[in-house]
Amino acid sequence: MFLIRSMEHTKVKMRTHAANSLTLLNISFGIIAIILVVRGYTHTSQLFIFLAAFSDRFDGMLARKLNTESDFGKQLDSLCDLVSFGIAPAILIYQTAFHNIPDIGLVFITVYILCGAIRLARFNVKEFDGAFYGIPITAAGIILTFFSFFVPILSVLFFGMITAILSILMVSNIRIPKM
Amino acid sequence: MFLIRSMEHTKVKMRTHAANSLTLLNISFGIIAIILVVRGYTHTSQLFIFLAAFSDRFDGMLARKLNTESDFGKQLDSLCDLVSFGIAPAILIYQTAFHNIPDIGLVFITVYILCGAIRLARFNVKEFDGAFYGIPITAAGIILTFFSFFVPILSVLFFGMITAILSILMVSNIRIPKM
Repeated sequence: MFLIRSMEHTKVKMRTHAANSLTLLNISFGIIAIILVVRGYTHTSQLFIFLAAFSDRFDGMLARKLNTESDFGKQLDSLCDLVSFGIAPAILIYQTAFHNIPDIGLVFITVYILCGAIRLARFNVKEFDGAFYGIPITAAGIILTFFSFFVPILSVLFFGMITAILSILMVSNIRIPKM
Repeated sequence: MFLIRSMEHTKVKMRTHAANSLTLLNISFGIIAIILVVRGYTHTSQLFIFLAAFSDRFDGMLARKLNTESDFGKQLDSLCDLVSFGIAPAILIYQTAFHNIPDIGLVFITVYILCGAIRLARFNVKEFDGAFYGIPITAAGIILTFFSFFVPILSVLFFGMITAILSILMVSNIRIPKM
């Protein structure tokens, strides 16, 4: 009896850890992406942000599938998202698109990360009613990373505008049904 | 009557914004610290991490004093702390102490940030009983930044050890009464 209960407990623990491990994989990819930008490997950094997005897509799905959604998992997810889709794409854009305007560029990326943090904090305290309010930071980060491929052919003005628009959209009240 | 109520509402809103503005100042200092390391201004970066710690010390105090503590404020605070005392000191140590061992250094700082995120997520879901469990990420970040001043005279082994110890202490169950 004790053995069965103990095995059941271990199974539940392993299932919970499975989803949280994917979340930790997401932030690890985000940290690697940041360091790769710092070391000048822009393209590899872009790849790691996409890998982070890939793990982020599956951690929530896995938690729901295994029925192990938890408050801790939700909190961890938001913290990791800020790193992988807030800090990492911001530094990527800063080092690629804004390197000729370092001070104005700093203002743009600071506002972007600030809006991302506000969006995540708001999301964590709101009851989820099947829709997002404001675009998720994951989407904003992926869009910014996608556009970083076009730095050689697009103007710095364009990157200023897209960073500002994504910042505003994150803290806006636009209702986006969850897919 | 309407005017008085409206003014009262505006006052409450302004008070809430005062504490949250200090939290946003904390993350802004953290972002500036990160960019300064990336640009090679290590010493100025150290200063900005201490400025972030200074704002962090006062946002909670201000919220309690003005009686405007909120779930949103708590969430925002954790997100900002991960940037200013997780990412910023980690990149600072990476660029100063670990620049000769970039790959092993990446493992050390990734574990440090992961442990910081776990510590914050755990803190957010636990009822506060007057004490912290595990050292706060703010303390870990300040200690790491403090030791970064000694990079020229201390060995890389020391920095590996201090980063690992701080990581373990953050996710430990050591009970630290709040001062």
